[in-house]
Amino acid sequence: MFMHNKRLQYTVRVSEPNPVLGSLMLEQFGGPDGELAAAMRYFTQGLAEDDPGRKDMLLDIATEELSHLEVIGSIVAMLNKGVKGALSEASMEEADLYMTINAGGDSHTQSILYGGGPALTNSSGVPWTAAYIDSRGDPACDLRSNIAAESRAKIVYERLINITDDPGIKEALGFLMTREVSHQKSFEKALYSIQDNFPAGKLPGLTPYASLYVNTSQGEGDATGPWNEGEQWERLDDVEGNLPLDGGDGQASVQLGERDMQDYAAMMGRLASDPNSSPATGADLGAGPGAGKLSDEDMGGAADMAEAKAMSRKQSAL
Amino acid sequence: MFMHNKRLQYTVRVSEPNPVLGSLMLEQFGGPDGELAAAMRYFTQGLAEDDPGRKDMLLDIATEELSHLEVIGSIVAMLNKGVKGALSEASMEEADLYMTINAGGDSHTQSILYGGGPALTNSSGVPWTAAYIDSRGDPACDLRSNIAAESRAKIVYERLINITDDPGIKEALGFLMTREVSHQKSFEKALYSIQDNFPAGKLPGLTPYASLYVNTSQGEGDATGPWNEGEQWERLDDVEGNLPLDGGDGQASVQLGERDMQDYAAMMGRLASDPNSSPATGADLGAGPGAGKLSDEDMGGAADMAEAKAMSRKQSAL
Amino acid sequence: MFMHNKRLQYTVRVSEPNPVLGSLMLEQFGGPDGELAAAMRYFTQGLAEDDPGRKDMLLDIATEELSHLEVIGSIVAMLNKGVKGALSEASMEEADLYMTINAGGDSHTQSILYGGGPALTNSSGVPWTAAYIDSRGDPACDLRSNIAAESRAKIVYERLINITDDPGIKEALGFLMTREVSHQKSFEKALYSIQDNFPAGKLPGLTPYASLYVNTSQGEGDATGPWNEGEQWERLDDVEGNLPLDGGDGQASVQLGERDMQDYAAMMGRLASDPNSSPATGADLGAGPGAGKLSDEDMGGAADMAEAKAMSRKQSAL
Amino acid sequence: MFMHNKRLQYTVRVSEPNPVLGSLMLEQFGGPDGELAAAMRYFTQGLAEDDPGRKDMLLDIATEELSHLEVIGSIVAMLNKGVKGALSEASMEEADLYMTINAGGDSHTQSILYGGGPALTNSSGVPWTAAYIDSRGDPACDLRSNIAAESRAKIVYERLINITDDPGIKEALGFLMTREVSHQKSFEKALYSIQDNFPAGKLPGLTPYASLYVNTSQGEGDATGPWNEGEQWERLDDVEGNLPLDGGDGQASVQLGERDMQDYAAMMGRLASDPNSSPATGADLGAGPGAGKLSDEDMGGAADMAEAKAMSRKQSAL
Amino acid sequence: MFMHNKRLQYTVRVSEPNPVLGSLMLEQFGGPDGELAAAMRYFTQGLAEDDPGRKDMLLDIATEELSHLEVIGSIVAMLNKGVKGALSEASMEEADLYMTINAGGDSHTQSILYGGGPALTNSSGVPWTAAYIDSRGDPACDLRSNIAAESRAKIVYERLINITDDPGIKEALGFLMTREVSHQKSFEKALYSIQDNFPAGKLPGLTPYASLYVNTSQGEGDATGPWNEGEQWERLDDVEGNLPLDGGDGQASVQLGERDMQDYAAMMGRLASDPNSSPATGADLGAGPGAGKLSDEDMGGAADMAEAKAMSRKQSAL
Amino acid sequence: MFMHNKRLQYTVRVSEPNPVLGSLMLEQFGGPDGELAAAMRYFTQGLAEDDPGRKDMLLDIATEELSHLEVIGSIVAMLNKGVKGALSEASMEEADLYMTINAGGDSHTQSILYGGGPALTNSSGVPWTAAYIDSRGDPACDLRSNIAAESRAKIVYERLINITDDPGIKEALGFLMTREVSHQKSFEKALYSIQDNFPAGKLPGLTPYASLYVNTSQGEGDATGPWNEGEQWERLDDVEGNLPLDGGDGQASVQLGERDMQDYAAMMGRLASDPNSSPATGADLGAGPGAGKLSDEDMGGAADMAEAKAMSRKQSAL
Repeated sequence: MFMHNKRLQYTVRVSEPNPVLGSLMLEQFGGPDGELAAAMRYFTQGLAEDDPGRKDMLLDIATEELSHLEVIGSIVAMLNKGVKGALSEASMEEADLYMTINAGGDSHTQSILYGGGPALTNSSGVPWTAAYIDSRGDPACDLRSNIAAESRAKIVYERLINITDDPGIKEALGFLMTREVSHQKSFEKALYSIQDNFPAGKLPGLTPYASLYVNTSQGEGDATGPWNEGEQWERLDDVEGNLPLDGGDGQASVQLGERDMQDYAAMMGRLASDPNSSPATGADLGAGPGAGKLSDEDMGGAADMAEAKAMSRKQSAL
Repeated sequence: MFMHNKRLQYTVRVSEPNPVLGSLMLEQFGGPDGELAAAMRYFTQGLAEDDPGRKDMLLDIATEELSHLEVIGSIVAMLNKGVKGALSEASMEEADLYMTINAGGDSHTQSILYGGGPALTNSSGVPWTAAYIDSRGDPACDLRSNIAAESRAKIVYERLINITDDPGIKEALGFLMTREVSHQKSFEKALYSIQDNFPAGKLPGLTPYASLYVNTSQGEGDATGPWNEGEQWERLDDVEGNLPLDGGDGQASVQLGERDMQDYAAMMGRLASDPNSSPATGADLGAGPGAGKLSDEDMGGAADMAEAKAMSRKQSAL
Repeated sequence: MFMHNKRLQYTVRVSEPNPVLGSLMLEQFGGPDGELAAAMRYFTQGLAEDDPGRKDMLLDIATEELSHLEVIGSIVAMLNKGVKGALSEASMEEADLYMTINAGGDSHTQSILYGGGPALTNSSGVPWTAAYIDSRGDPACDLRSNIAAESRAKIVYERLINITDDPGIKEALGFLMTREVSHQKSFEKALYSIQDNFPAGKLPGLTPYASLYVNTSQGEGDATGPWNEGEQWERLDDVEGNLPLDGGDGQASVQLGERDMQDYAAMMGRLASDPNSSPATGADLGAGPGAGKLSDEDMGGAADMAEAKAMSRKQSAL
Repeated sequence: MFMHNKRLQYTVRVSEPNPVLGSLMLEQFGGPDGELAAAMRYFTQGLAEDDPGRKDMLLDIATEELSHLEVIGSIVAMLNKGVKGALSEASMEEADLYMTINAGGDSHTQSILYGGGPALTNSSGVPWTAAYIDSRGDPACDLRSNIAAESRAKIVYERLINITDDPGIKEALGFLMTREVSHQKSFEKALYSIQDNFPAGKLPGLTPYASLYVNTSQGEGDATGPWNEGEQWERLDDVEGNLPLDGGDGQASVQLGERDMQDYAAMMGRLASDPNSSPATGADLGAGPGAGKLSDEDMGGAADMAEAKAMSRKQSAL
Repeated sequence: MFMHNKRLQYTVRVSEPNPVLGSLMLEQFGGPDGELAAAMRYFTQGLAEDDPGRKDMLLDIATEELSHLEVIGSIVAMLNKGVKGALSEASMEEADLYMTINAGGDSHTQSILYGGGPALTNSSGVPWTAAYIDSRGDPACDLRSNIAAESRAKIVYERLINITDDPGIKEALGFLMTREVSHQKSFEKALYSIQDNFPAGKLPGLTPYASLYVNTSQGEGDATGPWNEGEQWERLDDVEGNLPLDGGDGQASVQLGERDMQDYAAMMGRLASDPNSSPATGADLGAGPGAGKLSDEDMGGAADMAEAKAMSRKQSAL
Repeated sequence: MFMHNKRLQYTVRVSEPNPVLGSLMLEQFGGPDGELAAAMRYFTQGLAEDDPGRKDMLLDIATEELSHLEVIGSIVAMLNKGVKGALSEASMEEADLYMTINAGGDSHTQSILYGGGPALTNSSGVPWTAAYIDSRGDPACDLRSNIAAESRAKIVYERLINITDDPGIKEALGFLMTREVSHQKSFEKALYSIQDNFPAGKLPGLTPYASLYVNTSQGEGDATGPWNEGEQWERLDDVEGNLPLDGGDGQASVQLGERDMQDYAAMMGRLASDPNSSPATGADLGAGPGAGKLSDEDMGGAADMAEAKAMSRKQSAL
């Protein structure tokens, strides 16, 4: 069960209201690498985890991330405090309030729709979605996903720190950023305390394909490095000459029953394209005589227009 | 700051695994009226709230809803425990596992993608979205929204209770359902402890329109009741005869500058429809001679086909 | 069946084009509390409703909301009329058009993508989603949801009124705002004309939990009020000392069959974390000698590096 | 199988970085008519297509659209190259970087969240969704959808061309725009090389309704044209007098079994609205004595207040 | 303004409740080609349209589509009437109700969450989104989009007709399907009554690229037809040999200022990959000695393990 | 630029149609860890990458993932081939087709809406969204995200392999699964060939918080391991006693100007909750005399009903 103490994990001191900065901060409140995403990522994993050590760690960190959601959300609330009151009480002239609302970023929606409260959107106003969460119920996957997520959250905090000179905000963001580093370390330790964590799962890879590097992008700029060269790698440069890799015909096939075959024959007959036709089309009909348009040649020459006439004739004879 | 105790707020005893039931329970985990929605609704309001009493209440209830998220998520985890192990260890024949995976509902995705962990989706697999949260930063609105949300959560729990006979699940769901009733009562009290809460906001309504009931749906089934009849209401039955309500011309207009006027003239000339044309169309071209099709009459008669021929001729002469 | 008269329910007179203001107005066209949401909320309820009075009311109000969608959409169309023509006819220098497009808010997308027509997005460009609609098929829920929705729509209109000094727009918005007040009154009357509407549904709450207030957020700022104190409430302050509320062990459990037990044993053995390990990790490998990085102590000391060497040795011996 | 050459299909020469212009260009990268949408539209159709000619064409064009995705994405990457470096290296004062980040459009999110890389969003930051793709597995539908999609992509490119004076960007956009025209022509030809393509599918329309034009929007502005008048059309002006079109009762009905009937009777009894009640409501309770509020008359007069008192009395007597 | 008559445009007679069939019917209620999408598509176009003929047509058809939304929604409501009552009144044993809820499709969510009312989702429960609507504010695009949309709606109705043998439903679906055919015809006429409608917009295509067919998908199955061969087409088969098409270097470039250059140098130095390194990786650390895993060779040989040891040594010396 | 060869990278041989299995396979076509997500993840990173080695690798792997999208999409197309023809030609009795459509999973929507073509949805029908892609423009983050994504894709393929006994499908899935392992190895090598990759970015963490483990989840089940114990960690168990960590007051504050202060005073006065009130509420009004409801005690006793009466009296006196 969760409990709450009204003190924040880290004190928030904001120098002055700034709704535009507030809307940027939302990236770590309701954005894809924000604190709700972090908390829910670890919480859902923790609920399903059976290993007692990992379960405890996941619940510890999930709970702390909720506390971080509170810190970053409090920063947003403070930054919006001016516009919230002004809009609620309509204390300014309309034209002044209009200017305040339109100062930049996504702050207009945060004011009009959310009334200055911290909304679970990113800095563009996109509502948070659980599509951001990639828990898969396998610790060798989930811990890697957590490691990556912490590194992303770290970089986004770093960018936010770089754009504000409010010392209180900078300090709180620095705290939050550092905690991501610490959490990444915990997840790394947890991953490698599973003795056999690569590749994830039980099934081994198929030997011929596990060390193959397929050089599908060629031309100027082709490069080598430890990711495609060396003892670990067999490299395939003649991609097209080795299609398919399994030595088959490279086709997709399925065995259809008799009834299905009949349906297919009927469908293909009904919907066949005639490769030898030269049909008039809607584009032909629509290409008017106006200037600034594609020329006659682009639109098709005499051949298919004759066809068009023939078809028109046939239809009008019906 | 949040803290966590590993004991649940309510003990969860599940009789046996059942992933289909598990996928239905997700409605209250990651669905629109589920516990994450509830927690985030109150938490975001609490962060922005300045009234000390409401702030405390919102944080109390938000925190409890997180604890309910844990309870319902634990029910899902228990119900999925069989399929999780079977899929992870591949201990069954493929055909048996295929049957297990396809037992119903959305449980197939919960198994394949989420590995049996509780996912933040509803019972159809739709990922949770902050679009479910309607906090607006005004307590007279937000408390009404909370009251409504609690009543919805109550009814969904009631429906889930009605479809399972597992006594441990029924008991835990009953607890969760009851807490929604209790929370609704708190929000009601908080709403009415604001002396002047209707209508929300500061602006009064415009007198002529505030008590008007517009009978826009007519015909058999027209009914009266306290919502459209009585001292509070002035009723408008002749809707079309009173258009517009303001006595103007009922048109939309804007004053354009000279340059804008020129642009509009150019655009309208370029894109004008010719009401007197009788053009051949793509549909005319595409209506083949096949059986089971619309008849000749449906497709247009001789008049516009002559036109089509003429147009074709013109184009082929280009 | 629906019918339409080209006159608006309320005349729209816009002083001059302003695409930024137009993009703010979208909040009530394609936003979560906008007129499409309102219309669809009541229309879907009306289709399923069996009570003749409520059905009629829901269809009356749904139809009127569609008419309001037309009014607010017409305001948007008028405000965008300048940029629409200019962009269509490319009558300005590129640099001037670029400035016009980037005047603020979300108006750039409204111009580039939607060509100045009213788009079903909110003021941040988020497409309207039926996730905004919370009809649940129970009138005691749905009417409360409608009451809340009307109060939200009222406040958003009020905020829009506060930021524009165009008298024609102000007047039309005032009309629309007032109608929300009127609709809220109708839904209130309809709710309370159901004799027994609280709590929603048939199932009673469980007595011990229906009047309990759980004080989960403590510390400075703990407050009381009619929502948690008084004759209606039993209050629980020692939350952690009363876990779980049911007197059980506060654990989640499920009875697994023999096969499931075997799977779990295998899975847990395979994926166990070793709490006594001191593994080298990817973070250890990645912490380079660069300045501006975490110090050696942060990255782990000698103990687990010895382990890393040992593991490396073991692997290179394979 | 796909292969890649690092040369672009068209050379991209950008004069100088401009992240705001970069965020507008995203409309054709990750927007609804952008190149990913185009590529995936044709690719998914191609995979399911059985007609060899159409299959080849769909794969040709899908592959080219991927190459266009690369061209437009490269434009975005070049336009963001300044802000990417500045933000990564934090080489400016915070206040200057803040100004750079907030220059307009959605570029703030592109910088903070996506680090200046081309993101699969539209110009408002809305993430790309497969909801944009309308492949239906029937060529007479899908080719029409493709024709329409190409015309939309053409117009969005035209708008982007109109707002920039960077000659290298203009040239590359002109190339991309022209290819959409060419692709539209191919799809038109493919559509009309199916002999019988209108209407799509096998089922004929029902004769009485296929040529009927229903004049549902009346009043000033009623107009005629070839879309509702002429030999092809039968026109219905008295809409309400001809309800329903089938001559039945215009009601929706279902035959319920006995048990269902009983449930309905119970439900309707339980939830019936009392049309003759005059209930006090939450709005009545909430309408305080404050100034700037709806007047007494709006809120209901004495009648239902007496009722409220009576109800209160009844309840307090329980 | 909209008005409503409670009679449906077409009578709905359903033989018996069937919630699974009801959930399939949702495809045309809240699905991408459903009636809400149709109505909103034409309505938003109509609001912005200036041509009086097209405006009238768009509003006529938009209004009729709303009436169709009512017809298909009424079918859904009738099909769900059994489960709605049963769930509301809990008149069955839990196990029976559980079976009823899980009869197939997405009907479980329709019952539990939406209470049997028609929900604005598709047949998988995906909430309707305005991302389905592709109005672009240019009639030569929008009419083509409408034509395509009508053909898609027609085919989905045809599929629904093919899977039910309830005569009343079949009849109503046949009516709705036929109206789509009729609407497609209107939009075709309106498109071709614009004299010069191809390509959309004002800008001409660039001559060298407007008639070029790029054969990007080669190998077995390469085909020709009127879409890539004939007088209209210039065909490019040697794609790679003609890169880029403009004769430039096929690179993307931007001119950076001095400061930007410095940032880039710093960033690239800091983040350079060392192509000659042979680093130990997290995968190396994680590849345990377990059976059923990739072999030693797959995981990298001695060389980079020596490096790993060296790095470990270096780090432990810090 | 991309080119395409119609041969697949791996031959697809499907034994017989099975649309339910097809809908499960969609998880790797249009699901969050599917091949489109993989391709777009690496492609967007490659476009913005400046390091030549990484850029080449990202484009190589992106291109191969598109080829995998083709392989898995071809499997889906083959599995759906029966239902596609049957539905298109309506060759079965309606009741039989209804059974075929409703065989399980999400295959009903795949048939009705997508016509049997592979749709870019996951196995629940959720449309693919770019919210799945977490490219952040920093290689130390992005490579970690890629490593995690490959491990997730591996496990989902493993699960799909475990549920089918079709040998051709198993073989192709095994190939695809193995390639994910190979790609993970490449990304690992690329990450560690950046000398200094932890933590991501330039900013160091703050020393006091980088090695702190906060034990926020306590009670039975508290555990230790290398993730929270040992030389690397300082551990905080008395969480509440150390609030906030910075030694401040743990409050959020902002300095408001005079005008803002006035607005706040007005707003708080207007919206204050009265903690000493005992208001009657909507719940009180709605709690009818029905059986099966909460008891009188739950709903509030005499005290606040007296208040309600008083308030009613006051209002009726207005």
